[in-house]
Amino acid sequence: MSENTAMVIFQPSGRRGEVPKNVTVIEASRLLGVDIEALCGEKKVCGKCVVRIEDGHFEKFNVTSSMSHVTPWQEEEDKFINAERKAKGFRLGCVTKVLGDLLVFVPEESRAGKQVVSKAARDIHIEHNPAVRLYYVQVDPPTFHDPLGDFERVCKGLERDHGLSNLTADIFTLRTLPTALRDGKWAVTVSVWNEKEIIRVRPGKVEHTYGVAIDVGTTTVAAYFCDLTTSKVFDTVSMMNPQCKYGEDVMARITYHMTSPDGLQRMSNDIIEGVNELIEQAIQNTFPPKKKKKKKKGEEGPDEFVEVPEEGKTYLRLTRDDIEDVTIGFNTAMHHIFLNLNPEFVGMAPFPPVLHHSLDIKARDLGIKINASSYLFVLPIEAGFVGADNVGVLIAEEPYKYEENQLIIDIGTNGELVLGNRHKMISSSCATGPALEGAQITFGMRAAPGAIERIDIDPATKDVNYKVIGRDAWRKYSEPKEMQAKGICGSGILDLLAELFRAGIIMRSGVFNRKVMEGHKRFRINPDNRQPEFVLAWAEESSINKDIVVTQKDIRQIQLAKGALYAGCKLMMRRMGLEKVERVKIAGAFGTHVDRTKALVMGLFPDCEIEKILSVGNAAGDGCRAALLNIRKRAEANWCSRNVEYVELTVEPNFQQEFMESMQVPHMKDEFPHLKGVVADEILNQK
Amino acid sequence: MSENTAMVIFQPSGRRGEVPKNVTVIEASRLLGVDIEALCGEKKVCGKCVVRIEDGHFEKFNVTSSMSHVTPWQEEEDKFINAERKAKGFRLGCVTKVLGDLLVFVPEESRAGKQVVSKAARDIHIEHNPAVRLYYVQVDPPTFHDPLGDFERVCKGLERDHGLSNLTADIFTLRTLPTALRDGKWAVTVSVWNEKEIIRVRPGKVEHTYGVAIDVGTTTVAAYFCDLTTSKVFDTVSMMNPQCKYGEDVMARITYHMTSPDGLQRMSNDIIEGVNELIEQAIQNTFPPKKKKKKKKGEEGPDEFVEVPEEGKTYLRLTRDDIEDVTIGFNTAMHHIFLNLNPEFVGMAPFPPVLHHSLDIKARDLGIKINASSYLFVLPIEAGFVGADNVGVLIAEEPYKYEENQLIIDIGTNGELVLGNRHKMISSSCATGPALEGAQITFGMRAAPGAIERIDIDPATKDVNYKVIGRDAWRKYSEPKEMQAKGICGSGILDLLAELFRAGIIMRSGVFNRKVMEGHKRFRINPDNRQPEFVLAWAEESSINKDIVVTQKDIRQIQLAKGALYAGCKLMMRRMGLEKVERVKIAGAFGTHVDRTKALVMGLFPDCEIEKILSVGNAAGDGCRAALLNIRKRAEANWCSRNVEYVELTVEPNFQQEFMESMQVPHMKDEFPHLKGVVADEILNQK
Repeated sequence: MSENTAMVIFQPSGRRGEVPKNVTVIEASRLLGVDIEALCGEKKVCGKCVVRIEDGHFEKFNVTSSMSHVTPWQEEEDKFINAERKAKGFRLGCVTKVLGDLLVFVPEESRAGKQVVSKAARDIHIEHNPAVRLYYVQVDPPTFHDPLGDFERVCKGLERDHGLSNLTADIFTLRTLPTALRDGKWAVTVSVWNEKEIIRVRPGKVEHTYGVAIDVGTTTVAAYFCDLTTSKVFDTVSMMNPQCKYGEDVMARITYHMTSPDGLQRMSNDIIEGVNELIEQAIQNTFPPKKKKKKKKGEEGPDEFVEVPEEGKTYLRLTRDDIEDVTIGFNTAMHHIFLNLNPEFVGMAPFPPVLHHSLDIKARDLGIKINASSYLFVLPIEAGFVGADNVGVLIAEEPYKYEENQLIIDIGTNGELVLGNRHKMISSSCATGPALEGAQITFGMRAAPGAIERIDIDPATKDVNYKVIGRDAWRKYSEPKEMQAKGICGSGILDLLAELFRAGIIMRSGVFNRKVMEGHKRFRINPDNRQPEFVLAWAEESSINKDIVVTQKDIRQIQLAKGALYAGCKLMMRRMGLEKVERVKIAGAFGTHVDRTKALVMGLFPDCEIEKILSVGNAAGDGCRAALLNIRKRAEANWCSRNVEYVELTVEPNFQQEFMESMQVPHMKDEFPHLKGVVADEILNQK
Repeated sequence: MSENTAMVIFQPSGRRGEVPKNVTVIEASRLLGVDIEALCGEKKVCGKCVVRIEDGHFEKFNVTSSMSHVTPWQEEEDKFINAERKAKGFRLGCVTKVLGDLLVFVPEESRAGKQVVSKAARDIHIEHNPAVRLYYVQVDPPTFHDPLGDFERVCKGLERDHGLSNLTADIFTLRTLPTALRDGKWAVTVSVWNEKEIIRVRPGKVEHTYGVAIDVGTTTVAAYFCDLTTSKVFDTVSMMNPQCKYGEDVMARITYHMTSPDGLQRMSNDIIEGVNELIEQAIQNTFPPKKKKKKKKGEEGPDEFVEVPEEGKTYLRLTRDDIEDVTIGFNTAMHHIFLNLNPEFVGMAPFPPVLHHSLDIKARDLGIKINASSYLFVLPIEAGFVGADNVGVLIAEEPYKYEENQLIIDIGTNGELVLGNRHKMISSSCATGPALEGAQITFGMRAAPGAIERIDIDPATKDVNYKVIGRDAWRKYSEPKEMQAKGICGSGILDLLAELFRAGIIMRSGVFNRKVMEGHKRFRINPDNRQPEFVLAWAEESSINKDIVVTQKDIRQIQLAKGALYAGCKLMMRRMGLEKVERVKIAGAFGTHVDRTKALVMGLFPDCEIEKILSVGNAAGDGCRAALLNIRKRAEANWCSRNVEYVELTVEPNFQQEFMESMQVPHMKDEFPHLKGVVADEILNQK
């Protein structure tokens, strides 16, 4: 590294590179192609470009980042960053200059071109039977002849009016009891958890209580806020997993724990803080937006704000205490890290987790800021690499209730597979890696405006037609400069392999077909790295003034990912003695974007009738929500976690060979009868 | 108050008065008769005279105390007081000068002439059946064919080897599990609470686990540390209740809560901190004492210490984590304040508590620093003024198992009474006040060296023979200057009324018998307050160079206390339809000191055969210990708390009249046949 440059890494995007010292963080972000919001054009007045300078050594990037690697605090920053956030390393990107190596975290709210998170709650049927229910009770005030204690008095009333017996209450609830009873003139509404424990007491009659189902992915965290009285979702909030700065996949984070003495604690704190931020955001959303009050001429003093409710909209005006129940699911590594459980052994063969069973944990024991006595229901996990998220998928999809053999694929950064029917279910995991989500691909990027999300290649001309996020018109119907393409996101990558193959640009092996492509204007050898590459979008169509290309190495990455998945499916079918699967369900953001035909063409999973390939959206999140709204689903989840047999694929005989073969694009004749007619025979059967 | 003096109050003794400004705290303590340890003679080198300057306004004393009312921190203090204690207001008494009003807390360790706390554990039979038991288990390490999670693996082993099923573990225990299992090479000892929850996991085979039973009195806190494996008490530690500074009786503390916004929180924090200190002290006691290592000639650097074990003594060398169970009992107000439950309504008719039932609270939820997942068992309470301490007395004495009617009296600052047998039990409370413990008496003091603890008065000469704590020889067998008397403690006060009466110095009404005493050298009218007084010890026999006297007002205070108790007993007997009680048990430090005959003479409780009057020591503490060592006693405690009927005496008809009459010394003929022969008839029947 030269004396005049510094290594700067932006998270969660992972973009990194050397920048000249003394540039501002905003300038550095431009140089590295990261979008940070800066409405005022760096006039230091909008306060939108808030970033966080991380402190510590980050093994993954081999970089030591420190607050002392930037210029000192400026007075202008006081206006936008309070003391608490200042202490956490928050700075304004437009005034802070780079003096040394940095890891810069760009918070969700500072990101220009916010990610398109498709984690909306699906409209699935969930029986209404929540763990937390409200009961109204009126009691007589105590007298000398009946000096019974407040708690026993309320319990007596609850047994008389609602048949609830043997209730308990923890010390935090008991502390609020005497005042609530007297404020309510001896009439209160109590929240009862699981018909066992009083977790809240409010004076008078109250009709609603609320909860949240949280789905923590390796990359994204989504939270579904529900009215437990009506089962309705009143808000969905999501964010990037703040742990991304420690590594993009679970193994990287486990490694971070093993190499940094306080690594586990830091990662745990960050995700807990993240969850608290999501809750805070949802709480804020229940109030009308505020506008600064105009000052009278000559009036001084601090700014005042007034609420500006949208017409016709009602606002719930909740507090954190109004959140009385939480369910949460994640993969096993995220589960362990969230709970501050040692994840080391989950990352080491034979991958035993610390525990499988679900947990009811007082939210306060984890630092989750909601009603003091409320519980967090942590979904159970199946195995080291098949986590609570997969259990969520199972209780949402219920394959164990059908005769038909279903294959359920949940692909995030890690691939999780379930196969079976009412008689037997097995599960497995495969290391798909993050390539299918855009990482490790030269022009890979998040699903944000400018990302190529769909691709069509003309087999005759090899010309590329594509669509970017944020623009409805395809390339074919646009002027080049209207496209403003920036890179390729996950869904575009899914189209890529199938289209390159279908157009005859690559062969079954994934290698560029030089016989065909030699001399084509879109095909070339990169002079810097001597690699063949294919141009998807020309510089003039891009917002970054560069050709957007796919390289031979990129194709190899995609093949490794799809190969891992396909090999996993095949080995599981063999284990179950199945020739074919009757239904394929694809869960995750992945599933909502995948073109079923193209997925079949690239050989992402075994052959199946195209109509029987279904996207089931964020089924893991749906499972968390089902557990939130229906307590019986919690028992069902525990049943799943112990009755779905986990199969470790890497120790199966033939694993290596199967994996190698699976990297190829499929051969119609032997295994994919349903491809017939979709791809021309001569292409499909080329050698 | 003059400009040149300041009001200084020392706690827990409560001694107070004006002192000249600019005297040191040690000088002020001498002026007010408080003993603070100062081994080095104020040369600022021993560090023994550490005191704490309290911050805030103390309603009870109408004084505002502040760190700014003393001279600034001196360099010498750094040697003895660390930053943490400095921040809490700790100072060296010998360097700190009084500049304004102060409330000074003298910690236990700084008190010269430490209090004689007679709260030793009695040798009562307790069945061994603790809530926390140890189980050793060996399991197979996980393999690809058996990748079961650590927790489920251990549970499976526990079910197989010990028949334990459906165990749970909280997140704190789970966090230690993977490391313990691997450190122990897949063999661990688990601590199981209540056959329900794993609360600790240690590698390898471990034989012992420990617990503590805590009895929190209004004035004194005693803790019994037990080996849960053998039931043996290995240490008893006690201290003054640090809440004394907020008021000496429960009503004063409830008032403090109602008049100070953070009063409850402060009192709760102080007692929690106190309990943590007791635990720390017991932990320290399990290590050998340390001695400073001699330095070699010319050697520099910090002092080193070496252990100096007593010969033949074994040391347990425990850590806080080795304390795995706690039981705790107190009166209702102390219960509420400890738990930070609003005590307001306990102090207001009809005195309903927040709850009666026992509680199992994670010690961490209260800030009690022991094994992270351990519980605190809080004994149940009967009523607003009959607390968990009384339940402790009941389960230790078990009157509900006998046919005979027993009267159990537990007198601390508040009197609690239980009467009945296996068919019916009633309980009550009476406001005895702190007079019987020495407070509100002119020369009352704690049970410390120099306190008069026994008194005999010659009926013929009215001469006084007495014994002081710290000296075996009575006055009669000593030179005057050998006595070094300072005041009268609780047990001396118990003798006083009976002896004054028996010697004919006072009449049945408690009034000095002027006909007899006029002209006696020990009897006089105090010129300052015009009150008659009787000299117990002459100035030359004292260490304070003053005559130690008992005044008419002192006698009235003692009568009020004894009257409240006697009236309570009588009203309860009437309620039960009893003419007499078959057995009287006296619990508390009070009971261990009382002379049964003298108690009968003064009419402390109704007539009973003298051999059937028994002292049962700190039965409340014994009850806590029983609950610690035998889990069945916990259920029994809950049964007691709901099946002993509480009687509110103040609303009984004739309460006032009964109380007035009870203040008199008893008349032999009508109610006290067992007094016959104990006191001369002519004295007993005087008008």
